[in-house]
Amino acid sequence: MDSTTEMLQTHPAKPTTHFEVVNAAIQACYDCAQATTLCADACLSEKAEDIENLRECIRLDLDASDFCIATGRLIARQARPVPELWRAALQACIQACKACAEECAQHEDRFDHCRVCREACERCVEACQAALDAIPEGGAETRH
Amino acid sequence: MDSTTEMLQTHPAKPTTHFEVVNAAIQACYDCAQATTLCADACLSEKAEDIENLRECIRLDLDASDFCIATGRLIARQARPVPELWRAALQACIQACKACAEECAQHEDRFDHCRVCREACERCVEACQAALDAIPEGGAETRH
Amino acid sequence: MDSTTEMLQTHPAKPTTHFEVVNAAIQACYDCAQATTLCADACLSEKAEDIENLRECIRLDLDASDFCIATGRLIARQARPVPELWRAALQACIQACKACAEECAQHEDRFDHCRVCREACERCVEACQAALDAIPEGGAETRH
Amino acid sequence: MDSTTEMLQTHPAKPTTHFEVVNAAIQACYDCAQATTLCADACLSEKAEDIENLRECIRLDLDASDFCIATGRLIARQARPVPELWRAALQACIQACKACAEECAQHEDRFDHCRVCREACERCVEACQAALDAIPEGGAETRH
Repeated sequence: MDSTTEMLQTHPAKPTTHFEVVNAAIQACYDCAQATTLCADACLSEKAEDIENLRECIRLDLDASDFCIATGRLIARQARPVPELWRAALQACIQACKACAEECAQHEDRFDHCRVCREACERCVEACQAALDAIPEGGAETRH
Repeated sequence: MDSTTEMLQTHPAKPTTHFEVVNAAIQACYDCAQATTLCADACLSEKAEDIENLRECIRLDLDASDFCIATGRLIARQARPVPELWRAALQACIQACKACAEECAQHEDRFDHCRVCREACERCVEACQAALDAIPEGGAETRH
Repeated sequence: MDSTTEMLQTHPAKPTTHFEVVNAAIQACYDCAQATTLCADACLSEKAEDIENLRECIRLDLDASDFCIATGRLIARQARPVPELWRAALQACIQACKACAEECAQHEDRFDHCRVCREACERCVEACQAALDAIPEGGAETRH
Repeated sequence: MDSTTEMLQTHPAKPTTHFEVVNAAIQACYDCAQATTLCADACLSEKAEDIENLRECIRLDLDASDFCIATGRLIARQARPVPELWRAALQACIQACKACAEECAQHEDRFDHCRVCREACERCVEACQAALDAIPEGGAETRH
């Protein structure tokens, strides 16, 4: 079993009704944070004449990475979520990953790291959207 | 002159129409990130019988700190903002700081660090709201 | 294949001699960042009379989480590492995870999340030590 | 009075013997985190033919920014520091800022943002070194 699943299972206020959704969203955020950090660095390592076209990709990689970390951490502190904050955070993460995925899509025919990064971003959008859908009104229910 | 103002003034794609709004929002985010990190630690240093009531304050301090850093960084990368992302990011930061300010307000009669933190959160809300208002449709205009 | 491995394999300046060591160190850092964030929150969710004894555990969880993210990101930018920085960063991450593991060890008989977190910290120490050992003088060799 | 000074003064375990050193180190870390994030973005906004020579500058800006945030946060949690961790963290931050300052120095005749960033890095090195010197054996003494 991976650490995050095991940590959530031993958490005294672990999510009850939405365990898998919360678990998947945390893991997708950290996975995407790694992919976007690596994509930014891979873009910086491309040939000089290519970097110019990759500027926005690098910026959006960095944005997505920062919001994935912030959101992954916020979801982990799920014991008594403030609904407006939970929603706004997930939406910011979704927008950051969408913007990054769309930019990466424009470069993936030439740069395979952009394809891998786009896929990680799309999985993160999906996992955050599931968290947003599963917790429509009052945040996650917990065992408290 | 402080570093951030000087950095923005020497940035080749510095904001033209909204220089002060962008500058103020970046600085308010980092200022609030410091205050919330310190408030979380101050709460943890209170007497054992008080910490119980400060749990949510600590959690919201940590949330606000993470979103202030992510948002302060995103605003700094303002050359060609994606409007949906810019808006969602600022709204997440505003919600994080509002939630933290409201929680701190409930403790500030006993804990002066909660008052100082609330004030930093409110300034950050105001600065992010100004950024949101100033850039209604297409993101910051830049010198590009 | 996981995203990080695939991202490294498609990186134009991917590590040649130490691919597995670099890959393992990045992944261990992000895994430990998740575990420590969750352990801090789990500690905060324990009974009021227990939190007092978990203050240092929470602080060291937060320290370890922040240094794991910073170090995981730095290792990802491995194309032309500055040896003194690479070493100092890995040593800071090792010290943060060691301190956290030692503190967690004192609580793991009562709190199973502290055991899971200690194990993640120990794996991160090991992976960072391997990166430190494999790259003794001039940083990772890359395909540049 | 700025938020960080006021937060430290209202912290129940505020530093007693080294208040100014701790305060200055926290603020220098966050100031440098802003400067390096902005320098990375300014480098990305330079002409295509220049970005190639600024790759390492961008990478080291990002490294310094991440370690400044991690270290600024760790110093803020100064109530009962673990000496080995405190030292390793400050040394990592010093190395990150030194490496960034040295790289920026090579570009500052052409790019003024590199000069401003170098100065912020040098101030952060100095403030972290003062924290390292002031707290030689057992970490900060606090009011605990």
